[in-house]
Amino acid sequence: MPDLDYKGRVLRLQRLMSEAGVGVTMLSVGADLPYFTGYEAMATERLTMLVVPVVGEPIMFIPELEAPRVASDRLEVVAWGETEDPIALVAKAASGSEQITIGDHTWSVFLTALLRELPGVTWAPASTLTKHLRMRKEGPEIVALRSAAHAVDRVLARVPDEVAFAGRTESEIADDLLRMTTGEGHQIAQFAIVASGPNGASPHHSPGDRIVGPGDLIICDFGGFFDGYCSDVTRTFSVGEPSGEQIEVHSVVAAANETARAMVAPGVPCEEVDRAARKVIENAGYGDRFIHRTGHGIGLEVHEHPYLVEGNQLPLEPGMTFSIEPGIYLPGRFGVRIEDIVACSESGIDELNQADRSLVVVG
Amino acid sequence: MPDLDYKGRVLRLQRLMSEAGVGVTMLSVGADLPYFTGYEAMATERLTMLVVPVVGEPIMFIPELEAPRVASDRLEVVAWGETEDPIALVAKAASGSEQITIGDHTWSVFLTALLRELPGVTWAPASTLTKHLRMRKEGPEIVALRSAAHAVDRVLARVPDEVAFAGRTESEIADDLLRMTTGEGHQIAQFAIVASGPNGASPHHSPGDRIVGPGDLIICDFGGFFDGYCSDVTRTFSVGEPSGEQIEVHSVVAAANETARAMVAPGVPCEEVDRAARKVIENAGYGDRFIHRTGHGIGLEVHEHPYLVEGNQLPLEPGMTFSIEPGIYLPGRFGVRIEDIVACSESGIDELNQADRSLVVVG
Repeated sequence: MPDLDYKGRVLRLQRLMSEAGVGVTMLSVGADLPYFTGYEAMATERLTMLVVPVVGEPIMFIPELEAPRVASDRLEVVAWGETEDPIALVAKAASGSEQITIGDHTWSVFLTALLRELPGVTWAPASTLTKHLRMRKEGPEIVALRSAAHAVDRVLARVPDEVAFAGRTESEIADDLLRMTTGEGHQIAQFAIVASGPNGASPHHSPGDRIVGPGDLIICDFGGFFDGYCSDVTRTFSVGEPSGEQIEVHSVVAAANETARAMVAPGVPCEEVDRAARKVIENAGYGDRFIHRTGHGIGLEVHEHPYLVEGNQLPLEPGMTFSIEPGIYLPGRFGVRIEDIVACSESGIDELNQADRSLVVVG
Repeated sequence: MPDLDYKGRVLRLQRLMSEAGVGVTMLSVGADLPYFTGYEAMATERLTMLVVPVVGEPIMFIPELEAPRVASDRLEVVAWGETEDPIALVAKAASGSEQITIGDHTWSVFLTALLRELPGVTWAPASTLTKHLRMRKEGPEIVALRSAAHAVDRVLARVPDEVAFAGRTESEIADDLLRMTTGEGHQIAQFAIVASGPNGASPHHSPGDRIVGPGDLIICDFGGFFDGYCSDVTRTFSVGEPSGEQIEVHSVVAAANETARAMVAPGVPCEEVDRAARKVIENAGYGDRFIHRTGHGIGLEVHEHPYLVEGNQLPLEPGMTFSIEPGIYLPGRFGVRIEDIVACSESGIDELNQADRSLVVVG
């Protein structure tokens, strides 16, 4: 992960808390905690919780046996023992606050316990505050996201020569993509959706035992973690020569992708980018087969704010990074999706993924 | 995953809900949902939620683009569209209930939204009910856990011949263990703690760049998913001949492990097993260096109920499966842990792991 100004980030969070009347922010598992401290909580039944007061130093409550994992010179750490009650410690540190925000991914088992210890508190997700910081990437974050995008672009460039499709299962092809993703510098290959033929109509298909064959379109959607930041790219390949209909559907999705990218500029509302992509697909007669939003923010998490979806009037700002990923899904037949990660820059768009978007034929 | 009686499990849950005065149970990410349905929710900002009423059929609310992943013949499924509000749908399905239990790992971002939609409800973790079912494994679950344990036992048997220690990093050794874990039949190798020399004093050490050398003790704690169920085993090896002190500490931990295993029988309180292990270590003068509980339940999750910890008076019952894993951690010097998965049977203990527990010398 790039070296970042954690202290400055906490101070900016505390300013947002003060403006919103929030007394305490609690952060556990999820990306907010590493964003503000560089430390990632283990997802276990033993509570790790950073308690950030609106004024003063944050305190990290951590299981005693995980305390050696924290660089304690940067943080005030309270290690709780195996027979202590960490909820009581956290509740005491937060007592007196009427409004508390809590990390979005914090397990409900901890929040239900806090509800009992802190009656009368109004709770809200921490992202209502933290998104205002995390959405606007700092320079080193853009560098990491660009490196991640270029790495999966290199994987895509190798696919036609190095990955055999026909006669192999989706799972085998997914394994190839994951292996190449780490091979191109990712520390973790997080996911690979490989959806062939009729499976392509299921946007989040889990790769399975279906044998890929000539005539299939095949959606490859994969990514991972590179220096702590995420990649996420999709291309749709044709196994052997595509049919006229497959070429047409692919060209509609490509046009929707291009139209949405052309919309990206400071001040444009998120929903307008979604509408622009959707309009291209609607005009081609496939409006009811584009069954998801056009994009999602990306950074420390593969899905984060801002979301490019109808109803989100947030204007784009320089530093926002997100996917553009229109698709068309024809149940029982095939699907097409083309996804790129882009950044909004002062001058318009900064294209992090640049891999070939045409309908490449593979064997 | 073994084929199981999901319908019967839901009926047993509803009986527990009725006894506890709980009107609705809500299950999202985590192991409860697959336990009752065979379906695992994707951990994303798009809510998947099973709403189980105390009487009647459960309803699964799922994002439209994930609906094709559910076998809908077994479940009533409501697919919500990208611009709909799933929280409103879930709240409506739960309205009228004064007590609701919610899956332990459900993201707080959803619970905070439900708090607003359902004021006056008393919330509790679903595990307060589901643990009574999940703790007592059914026959096919014990079969899966035994297969998982035997697979990591085979890895351990191969370690002295096949894994080089001296001159390599912890990370390289961890990669070997993970690769061998999938090689021995696990679908997923989930984790490998490799903690050498002074790093062994950090129970949850992340394997890093430390080069392992002669004189090191090295804790290897690894596991994964085998037919949906977890393995988790720890052995401590000596790189070259161990010192007298290393032999002594290892023998104390081995005795604590053996003493705890000998305690396992129906009716014995969980905390008594912990006390028995702790007493052996205290008597040897290392009481303050055994800084964690003696064990945790295991099943669909690597850590689940019951916990073998001071304060847990729950009596063991046939079908309970858990770890026995005493350890001694000497800061700046070394650590030792020996962990086995065992089942409580009618007659006492059923040892799922059976790998050699002696201090094996590796090169």
